Amino acid sequence: MIDLTRRRLLTGAATVGAVAAIGVDVSGATTGAAASAASKQAPGFYRYKVGSIEVTVVTDGIRDAPLGNIVRNASTEEVNAALAAAYLPRDKFPYVFNPCAIKTGSKLVMLDTGLGPEIYAQSKGQAGQAHANLEAAGIDRKAVDVVIISHFHADHINGLLNADGTPAFPNAEVMVPEPEWAYWMDDAKMSAAPEGLKSNFANVRRVFKPLGDRVTRYGDNKELVPGITSMFTFGHTPGHSSHIVTSGSEIVLFQADVSNHPALFVRHPDWHASFDMDPVMAEGVRRKVYDQLAADRMKVQGFHFPFPSNGYIEKDGRGYRFVPAQWNPVI
Amino acid sequence: MIDLTRRRLLTGAATVGAVAAIGVDVSGATTGAAASAASKQAPGFYRYKVGSIEVTVVTDGIRDAPLGNIVRNASTEEVNAALAAAYLPRDKFPYVFNPCAIKTGSKLVMLDTGLGPEIYAQSKGQAGQAHANLEAAGIDRKAVDVVIISHFHADHINGLLNADGTPAFPNAEVMVPEPEWAYWMDDAKMSAAPEGLKSNFANVRRVFKPLGDRVTRYGDNKELVPGITSMFTFGHTPGHSSHIVTSGSEIVLFQADVSNHPALFVRHPDWHASFDMDPVMAEGVRRKVYDQLAADRMKVQGFHFPFPSNGYIEKDGRGYRFVPAQWNPVI
Repeated sequence: MIDLTRRRLLTGAATVGAVAAIGVDVSGATTGAAASAASKQAPGFYRYKVGSIEVTVVTDGIRDAPLGNIVRNASTEEVNAALAAAYLPRDKFPYVFNPCAIKTGSKLVMLDTGLGPEIYAQSKGQAGQAHANLEAAGIDRKAVDVVIISHFHADHINGLLNADGTPAFPNAEVMVPEPEWAYWMDDAKMSAAPEGLKSNFANVRRVFKPLGDRVTRYGDNKELVPGITSMFTFGHTPGHSSHIVTSGSEIVLFQADVSNHPALFVRHPDWHASFDMDPVMAEGVRRKVYDQLAADRMKVQGFHFPFPSNGYIEKDGRGYRFVPAQWNPVI
Repeated sequence: MIDLTRRRLLTGAATVGAVAAIGVDVSGATTGAAASAASKQAPGFYRYKVGSIEVTVVTDGIRDAPLGNIVRNASTEEVNAALAAAYLPRDKFPYVFNPCAIKTGSKLVMLDTGLGPEIYAQSKGQAGQAHANLEAAGIDRKAVDVVIISHFHADHINGLLNADGTPAFPNAEVMVPEPEWAYWMDDAKMSAAPEGLKSNFANVRRVFKPLGDRVTRYGDNKELVPGITSMFTFGHTPGHSSHIVTSGSEIVLFQADVSNHPALFVRHPDWHASFDMDPVMAEGVRRKVYDQLAADRMKVQGFHFPFPSNGYIEKDGRGYRFVPAQWNPVI
C-alpha cells in the first residue's frame, strides 16, 4: 500500500516519457491541445488590507532574460545553483514585475506602473500586463488620483503612457523622487553617461515630456498622500525611493528595488546586480532594511518578488529568506 | 537618507495608532470604508501545466478553527510558536481547502470537491467557494466527466451535491477509493464508532445516496483516467488515496491529506493531528512521501496548503519545509 519508492515514481515518469517519445501521448491530449489553448491564467491581481487601506497588487507579468552578467560578483555556476535552490530553471533570470494600486480612502494611488502597452504587444502578453490587470481588478485608470514613482527604470515608468504616447492615468498627479528627477534630467550627466545608460536618460525624457506639469517632486520621509510616506533607499538608482504604508496599527514596507528577485538577492544580499547603479550602496541599504524587517517581523511588498509579492524577510545563514504571506481568499 | 531605524518605523506606526485611537484615521478612510466594501478578492483559481495536462487549482476558501486539541502531541504554546514562525495569527488553525480541476485532453476531471454550497452560506463566503471559483475559471460543472475523491471527509465530498441535494456534477462518474468505501459503508463499523465519528458515517451516506450507481471504486496504483494514477496513502483515513499526475516527462504528486497545513505538519511531521484516524500510520506515510519528494525535487499539490498550494518539499532540520512554486502570470 505505502509504496512510494524512487523506482516506482521514476518508472512511472519514464514510462510516460518513453510512450510519448514514440508519438502516443498517454495523457490523451491529442484533442486537448486545441481545448486548452482557450484556457487563460487567472487575472493577475490580489488584494489585502493595511488597516483600512486597501492594496491591490497588479502584476505586470514576467520576462525571462539570459543570465549574462546580471550578477557582477558571482559565477554562472553559483547563480544557477541559487536558481535551482528556488526550483527555478537554470540559465534564465526571471524579471517579475508587480505594481500596486492603493486605495487610502481619500485617494486612489498607483505605486509604479509596469512596462506599458508596447511591451505587452512585443512580449505577446508575458509582460506589460498591468493595464489589463487593473481593468480585471475593476480599477479605472481615469479614477487614479496620484501615481507615485519609486525610480526611473522602464519597468516602473513606461506604463505612465498609453501606446499612443498619451497619459495612461489622465487625471493623476505624478509624484517622483526629487533626486531621481535631478539625476536623469541633468543634461551634463546624460552627456557623460556610458552608452548603455544613455538610452535610459532618453527613455525618462520620452516618458515625462507628455506629462508636463502633472509631475511633482518629493523628498525623503514625506507623507505623499495620507498613509503613504517616502523613504529614500539609494543605490539601485541615485534617487531610488521605497514607501511605508501605514493605517491603524499596521505597517507594510513597499521596498521597490531594494532587491530584485529574492531567490538571488534576498538569499545572497552580497550579490551585486548589474542594474544596481551603486551596488555597494545598494547592498548596504539592503542589509539595513532587511535586518530591520526581520527584527520587526514587518510585512514587505517587493516589486520584483513573485506575485503576489507580499510576505516577510527572515535571516537565514549569511543571507535572508523571503516567506510569502498566506493567500487570503477573501479580503 | 538611509534612515530605517527601529525607532523611526515604530514611531511611524505608533503615531498612526495614537491618532486613530482618538478617532481621526490618518489614512483618510472616513469615506473609504464604503468604497472598499465593494472590492472583492481576485477569483480563487490558478492554472499550471503538467506536460500537456492542464491543472486548475480552485480554492474552496479558508475556515479558521480554535486550536483546541488539533495537535494531539504538542502543547498550545508549541503550536502557537509554529503559527508565529509562519507569520500566522496565534490560537487559530487555518483550514485551507484547494480542490483541483484537471483537463487531461480526453477527460475533464475534478479531484475532490470542497465543502459545498451549504458552508458557503454558513461561512458568508469564507469557504465553500469551489463551485463559484469553478465558474470564474470558466469550467462548467456539467462538462466534468469524472470526479475523483481522495477520502470521505466533508471538505472533500460535500461539494458533490448542490444545496438541494442533487448531484453538483450531473454528468460525472464519481471514483472513490475501494477501502474508503468499504470502511464508511460498513454498518458494523458505524455502530461501533465513537459518537464524534458517527456524524461522518452519516454524512458519507447522505452524500453518496443521491449519486447511486454513478459511484465506482478504485484500487491502489490504478490509472483512473489517462495520466492520473491512484497511490494509496492510508493513515489520515482507512482508505485515503493520493494521486500521481504525469504527462510527458513531468510528474506532480497530488497528496490530498498526507499532511494538513504545512506550517504545522510539514514543519513538524511528528505532530499528530486529531483528524488523522491512525496518526502513527499517517506520520510514517508522511515521512516516506516527503523523503521521496525532497530527494526527487518533485512538485506536490497539497489540498490543505495555502492557495495556490503547489510547490516543493525540502528537508529542514528535523522536519521539512514547503516552498511554493513561483506564480506564473501566463499558463
